[in-house]
Amino acid sequence: MFSKNELCKTFINDVNEHPERINVSIERIEEVLKMVIGEEKAENICNNKLFNVKNKRAQIEEEKANSICDLILENINYDQLQRIILMFQDSEISTQEAIELHEKFKIPVSHLEKDIIPVRGEGAWIVSNQGKTYLDVDSNYSATNLGMNNEEIAKGLYNQASQLISMKEDRVHIPRSRFLKSITGMMPEGLTNFYWQNSGGEAVDKSIKIAKAFTNHRGVIALENGFHGRTHGALAVTYNLKYRKPFGLENEDWVHFVKPGEIDEIEDLFKENKARSIILELVQGEEAGIKPLDKRFVSRIRKICDKYNGVMICDEVQSGFGRVAKKEGEWFASHTYNVIPDIMVIGKSFGGGYPVTAVVSNDKISDAMKGGYDGSTFGGNPMAMVAALIATRQMRELNITKNVVERSKQIFDGLDKIDKKFDIFSNPHGMGMMIGFDLPSADDVNKFQDLLVKYRVKSSLSTNNTVRFLPPLILSEIEGKFLLSAIEKALEDM
Amino acid sequence: MFSKNELCKTFINDVNEHPERINVSIERIEEVLKMVIGEEKAENICNNKLFNVKNKRAQIEEEKANSICDLILENINYDQLQRIILMFQDSEISTQEAIELHEKFKIPVSHLEKDIIPVRGEGAWIVSNQGKTYLDVDSNYSATNLGMNNEEIAKGLYNQASQLISMKEDRVHIPRSRFLKSITGMMPEGLTNFYWQNSGGEAVDKSIKIAKAFTNHRGVIALENGFHGRTHGALAVTYNLKYRKPFGLENEDWVHFVKPGEIDEIEDLFKENKARSIILELVQGEEAGIKPLDKRFVSRIRKICDKYNGVMICDEVQSGFGRVAKKEGEWFASHTYNVIPDIMVIGKSFGGGYPVTAVVSNDKISDAMKGGYDGSTFGGNPMAMVAALIATRQMRELNITKNVVERSKQIFDGLDKIDKKFDIFSNPHGMGMMIGFDLPSADDVNKFQDLLVKYRVKSSLSTNNTVRFLPPLILSEIEGKFLLSAIEKALEDM
Repeated sequence: MFSKNELCKTFINDVNEHPERINVSIERIEEVLKMVIGEEKAENICNNKLFNVKNKRAQIEEEKANSICDLILENINYDQLQRIILMFQDSEISTQEAIELHEKFKIPVSHLEKDIIPVRGEGAWIVSNQGKTYLDVDSNYSATNLGMNNEEIAKGLYNQASQLISMKEDRVHIPRSRFLKSITGMMPEGLTNFYWQNSGGEAVDKSIKIAKAFTNHRGVIALENGFHGRTHGALAVTYNLKYRKPFGLENEDWVHFVKPGEIDEIEDLFKENKARSIILELVQGEEAGIKPLDKRFVSRIRKICDKYNGVMICDEVQSGFGRVAKKEGEWFASHTYNVIPDIMVIGKSFGGGYPVTAVVSNDKISDAMKGGYDGSTFGGNPMAMVAALIATRQMRELNITKNVVERSKQIFDGLDKIDKKFDIFSNPHGMGMMIGFDLPSADDVNKFQDLLVKYRVKSSLSTNNTVRFLPPLILSEIEGKFLLSAIEKALEDM
Repeated sequence: MFSKNELCKTFINDVNEHPERINVSIERIEEVLKMVIGEEKAENICNNKLFNVKNKRAQIEEEKANSICDLILENINYDQLQRIILMFQDSEISTQEAIELHEKFKIPVSHLEKDIIPVRGEGAWIVSNQGKTYLDVDSNYSATNLGMNNEEIAKGLYNQASQLISMKEDRVHIPRSRFLKSITGMMPEGLTNFYWQNSGGEAVDKSIKIAKAFTNHRGVIALENGFHGRTHGALAVTYNLKYRKPFGLENEDWVHFVKPGEIDEIEDLFKENKARSIILELVQGEEAGIKPLDKRFVSRIRKICDKYNGVMICDEVQSGFGRVAKKEGEWFASHTYNVIPDIMVIGKSFGGGYPVTAVVSNDKISDAMKGGYDGSTFGGNPMAMVAALIATRQMRELNITKNVVERSKQIFDGLDKIDKKFDIFSNPHGMGMMIGFDLPSADDVNKFQDLLVKYRVKSSLSTNNTVRFLPPLILSEIEGKFLLSAIEKALEDM
């Protein structure tokens, strides 16, 4: 598979071949050797004076690289060489350095996850920088539904960046035209007008601006336990006070929170002209621990919006692109709920992992908008449109909604059996491939997720005592079995 | 250069080679023929029954493509063939269809620019879908300072997307570690903590959140004629009422606008505890028509922030990465002003055209942050970090700040001469390669920009009667001369 020569090539990076990489560090060489040939043997090698340098994290120089390669090759067999080369190709930086760089230089506004450092995707699997393989069950919050690597998108992005890497949102360009020619069939009826953004929060923020401009009214209704993102606008309609309070957003007079189901309260807010728009997730995810809204409640919201010429916004950032399909072809929760919002917000796996999101509206809203209401440098840029064009085509060609229906049934059937078998396991719930179940406490959730890692399943998402799974939508039947078996084993260990 | 065979290949797309493209349409074939061989000759070809189809915008089928290729090849010479092939490679969709797709399916919250459809970058130049070449002088609002195509970034993105296309912001990953190892030398002293985002507005929004959390105070001072972006938070501190009013953001009680220079007013706001943070552009761009702030005013703001333990935020989204350098090595306006803010917001050309932005803070701010304050799916993703790593390395290797100093002198010297020669031209102003000058009226600006296009310079930016240029920072001396000459010719025509 690899020649000896390949080893030196992983030490000294060829910038023409890999402009994104640097040279290996001594610290990484030591780490890899320890993992592949064992602590003791590795130490024998690493005690050589070649390894005695002042800064073990500096990029190695060519001469030293050659000598170290020779030394290593004398001490390993062919199989070990193969493993070692792969690991250097995946990372030339040590685990400890990668973590410390993040701890030192990342503004810590989010909790740093460092138990596994993924370097490569292989279908539904992730490979870590330590050469271990895990079944992924959170898809980067549903952003990598098609898996964490994508050769076809890679190719498209290469072609596009070689030609035209960016173009401002307000100028007509060809990659966006191609996208528009291809997409409309996937959207709920009438939702065919796009305003592109880069993140889900940003798109939610803009959807609210558009609703306010259309209704000429600031008031917006949001649901308790909704989560919509982190910019000022998106955060204001996000329920959890803990997320809003440090930023003085605990009392925004334009936001009215209502408990899911309280339809009369919603109608009153419209009737009293306190609000003219409502934003909701059809399947409440992040904050509610995956709770599909009641179908009748949703259809009554639609009726109220019609009655008062209000704007219904569905935040389908997480639920969109087949994630919650109950039937083949249900690309959005709106399809499954058989309700058409005035505005839909889409994102996450829209670009197969590339940051592209959008506000999608009906003609009534779009026709009322004016130039100058917004603007964007990167919205709908050529690269984003290439990624969205290819990702959405892949979703159709892979018939991803059919797989969601089948895998969802498989997994929920399996969870029902597990439910009967284990007392600590309860309440499997969700929709499509948004999957939740409860354990007795949040501590149990942590313990359970750690045990899953032991059985090679990487799960990071939870809400209180609810474990949340958002597996890649390309999950196969065999991988579904693997997942169910890992859950059982982890529960047995608890 | 091209064989005949190549023509058919541009009609029927090989999806393996170009997953981002589709098949050509009859309408595009007609358009290209008219442009290359003239209306009359083209019509002779297009009158053939092969062109008589119901939907001229549908993707062509293979059999028909072959017949049309034969027909075309009978009627053109070799030189024409070369031009035709290039134009089909650049776009398989007609100008009219591209525009209509945008008009039909884009939510019109920004003014659609459709006079030129760029398909390819070549250094500082853009090539349109009609095969014409223009010198670019707005760099997509400063996002494509390194030009509109970038082979090296293309390669890096290909490698990365093949391997790991995305990873959530909160998890340690290797491409981000590589970036952190490479970047700190470019930043103003002490500004070494990053929180990555995807757009400038989003990063501004988050910088305000971070300032609010740090000061435990909602109050933020912003400057009159400042422009900071379009999300709720970024918009609230943007001065132009026209941008805020349709969204009910005209009276945000936490924002205090102050006229640039009014230092006492700023101190009073701190003293009276009405605000504890201030956000500003050191060179006011978009809204003020390029006005550098007074240096003494800026250093007094720094002192006031120190005195009250307040937070000074510099929005360097447009001014950063060498755009306004007055000396070699001045990567940010903060360098030129010799002032170090507590928080800097960077973006635009940070990723050489890829959407990546960041909040950058000092340790004092960073150390006070907490996990849960924010979160991001795409912030600092592997692709973004690859683009930022390569783009910032290119900036250093090309010694871009030196070029800015030289080109800035060349252009401002030239504009001074033009100023003396033309009565309607006045007030050349700005800093580095943020260049403004005035014409008698906004109508004159439109007329002038149209005339520039005639002389192959594409300029899109203006503020009232001020023309704004943000040329790519790779502009050469000869291109500087070309620009000055085009300005003269356009003024002569007015």
